[in-house]
Formats: sequence, structure tokens, C-alpha cells
Amino acid sequence: MAGMTTASATVGRPPSLADDDRKALILQAAETVFDSLGYGDATMEEVARACGMAKKTVYKFFPDKASLFGALVDSHDVAVIDSRAATGEEQSEVRLIRLLEDVAAAILSPRQITLTRLVIAESIKYPELAQRFYRDCVEKTMSHVAQALASDPSLRLPPGLDNKTFADMLVSTLLGSIHLRALMLNLSREALEEELRGRVPLVMDLIVRSLPAR
Amino acid sequence: MAGMTTASATVGRPPSLADDDRKALILQAAETVFDSLGYGDATMEEVARACGMAKKTVYKFFPDKASLFGALVDSHDVAVIDSRAATGEEQSEVRLIRLLEDVAAAILSPRQITLTRLVIAESIKYPELAQRFYRDCVEKTMSHVAQALASDPSLRLPPGLDNKTFADMLVSTLLGSIHLRALMLNLSREALEEELRGRVPLVMDLIVRSLPAR
Repeated sequence: MAGMTTASATVGRPPSLADDDRKALILQAAETVFDSLGYGDATMEEVARACGMAKKTVYKFFPDKASLFGALVDSHDVAVIDSRAATGEEQSEVRLIRLLEDVAAAILSPRQITLTRLVIAESIKYPELAQRFYRDCVEKTMSHVAQALASDPSLRLPPGLDNKTFADMLVSTLLGSIHLRALMLNLSREALEEELRGRVPLVMDLIVRSLPAR
Repeated sequence: MAGMTTASATVGRPPSLADDDRKALILQAAETVFDSLGYGDATMEEVARACGMAKKTVYKFFPDKASLFGALVDSHDVAVIDSRAATGEEQSEVRLIRLLEDVAAAILSPRQITLTRLVIAESIKYPELAQRFYRDCVEKTMSHVAQALASDPSLRLPPGLDNKTFADMLVSTLLGSIHLRALMLNLSREALEEELRGRVPLVMDLIVRSLPAR
């Protein structure tokens, strides 16, 4: 489809696809605008300019700035996690390592770091924004991990520890100060991945393999 | 000393004490102004107004906004940690629990959360600010914990794990999503402390007590 932007090609293209393409372009522009101006100073005009569309078009898809931000939150990377974690068969330990890698990669992805930084920055002025992000992004990710842990019969938690808390502790240990550094120091994707690679075996050694005997 | 603000009392007061009081008031005002306006929009004028001093007085102590922010970073809560962790004698486990509680309380203190949120918010525009904060606050805190761990002869780490990484993992597991929630959801001090109380025994069970036999 790339390059087919002549008038005749556009006429033959189903409108739903064009709508999705447009939405994706608007969201991409919104992410850039929010990141550079902050949520408070960003305007729908600025977003329209950044994606080269008429303001009217942007408003057609997103009635206001809050719904635009909501769509940005909804488009986050949790989806990546399910796909790989679901492929059964392998050993439980291999699956768990994969799950940890996927969750960390999703939390540390450039888009997710941008959104997280933005929400923290605006959390005093726009608390409802932060609540929505926490519920729809952070909690959803943790629930995925907790579900994956619960469905692993070989994983026995110490008494008093539920899957949700264990998921939280596991992901936190894995990320450690890497998350804070990603939010503060604008590290490259490569630097983050390098740090993470060293971290997964440590979490397995320190926490998972020392759980009560299976 | 409180209430002794008549002219005669001020004359007899050593100037160094008055200077320290003034500095403390300016820093307090700066914290409020930075928090509500963000670092970028805050001005020395605004800080002077917030503490009811002449702009000239503020400039006497802090030549510019960057040095004001630097002083704010330097006044953070790491000091709290040493004092209690240093009282020897008790059992190693009791000392470690106390250290964890102190570090978590320092990281989650209202001032530290405000500073951290501010630095994350401004990290794209002011990367040197974020680097300074990370080095002078976060790394210093982690070094304190790593030193305390190193000085505990009963604590044996698994091979391949150094004290610094272990400190990072321990503190991260303890804080978990509580830190992110403190940054995003503006939780009350009581709510944070309540969550933390439940967390310390879990970290001891899951990580510390499962270390290689002593």
C-alpha cells in the first residue's frame, strides 16, 4: 500500500482502513506534541499541524484532548505480552523468563516511557488522567502477569503472598532502578535492553528458584 | 527562639543562624513554586514572592534557578537513613528491616516525591537537572544501602550478585508499584505507610530469608 497516494488509489481504498490510518497518524502526532509541550499546554490545533490534517478531521475522530489522550493510553503495548506468553508447551521456567522479558520490554518501550513521564508530569494538574492511566495501563499489565503466574501449576508461593502482590514484586525487582532511569535520563533503547538482559537471570536466581520446593 | 522577632532580638542573633533560617524558608518556597509551576515556568521572582523576601535576598543566597534547585536536591532525606541504621548491637535481621523501612520512608517522603516528579517532568527539557538528581539523590541512597549490606557479615549473596545490584533489587521489590502510585496518584502519607508496612515482611520472606544458608 505504501506509495499509493494518488487520487485514483484513494478512491478505491475502503474508508474504514483510511480511518484507521488517519487515527494512527493523529495518535503518533499527539504523542510527539504531548511529549514536547506537556498535556496542559498541548492543543488540538498543534496536533492537527503536526500530522498535517485539518483541525476538523482531528475533531471528527477525537472530540477533545482528553479523549485523544485516552486513545493514546489504550494503544499502549500490553498486547505484546499476551501473544508470546500464550504459546504453551515449553518448560514453565522458560515461559516465565519470556513473560518477564516481554513485560519489561513493554513497560520500557519508548512510547510507554513517554506516556508514563507525561502522566507523572501532569498528575497534580490532571489527577483523573493519572487515575485512568494507572487503571488502564499499569494495573492491566500487572493483572496479565498475575494471571500468567496463577496458571502455572509448578509455581508455589509462600503463605500470605497472593499472585497479584507477587507479580508486582517480581516486575519491580526486574525493572529496579532501570525504570526510574528510563523516565529521568532518557536512555537509548539499546542501553535499556542491555541492562535488562543482565537482570532476568538475577531475578530467576534470587526469587523464583528460591520459592518453596515444588 | 520562636517568637523572638523584635528588632532588639534580631540584633543579638548571630547572622549565620539567620542566614540558615532564610535559606530554609527560600528552599521551602522554591519547592512549592517548582511543584505548582514546573521547573521551566518557575522564576526567582515567584520564589521571592512565595517566601515574602526581596528578590535581591533570594539572589544573595542562590545566584540562579539551577543553584536553587541544586540546593533543594542536596537537602533531601538521605540523612535520615544513616542515623538509625548506625545503631549497632541488634540482630542483623532487625537492622536490615529498619534499614528497609528508613530507605522506603525517605524515598516516599512528600518532599522526595515532589522532587522526583519534578525531575521526571522536566527531564526532556533539562537533562542536566535529571542527571544531577539521579547522581546526588538516587545513587547516593543506593550506595548507603549497598554499604549497609556489605557491612553485614551474616548476609551472603548468591554468586554473580554484587551488593549494589542487590541493594537496587531489594529496594525495588520493597517499593514495587507503590513508588509509581506515589508519583502518579498523589496518595496520602498514611496510605503510603500502610502499604509499606505490609511489604517489609514479604521482602524478608521472599528474598532475604531465602539467601544461601549463612
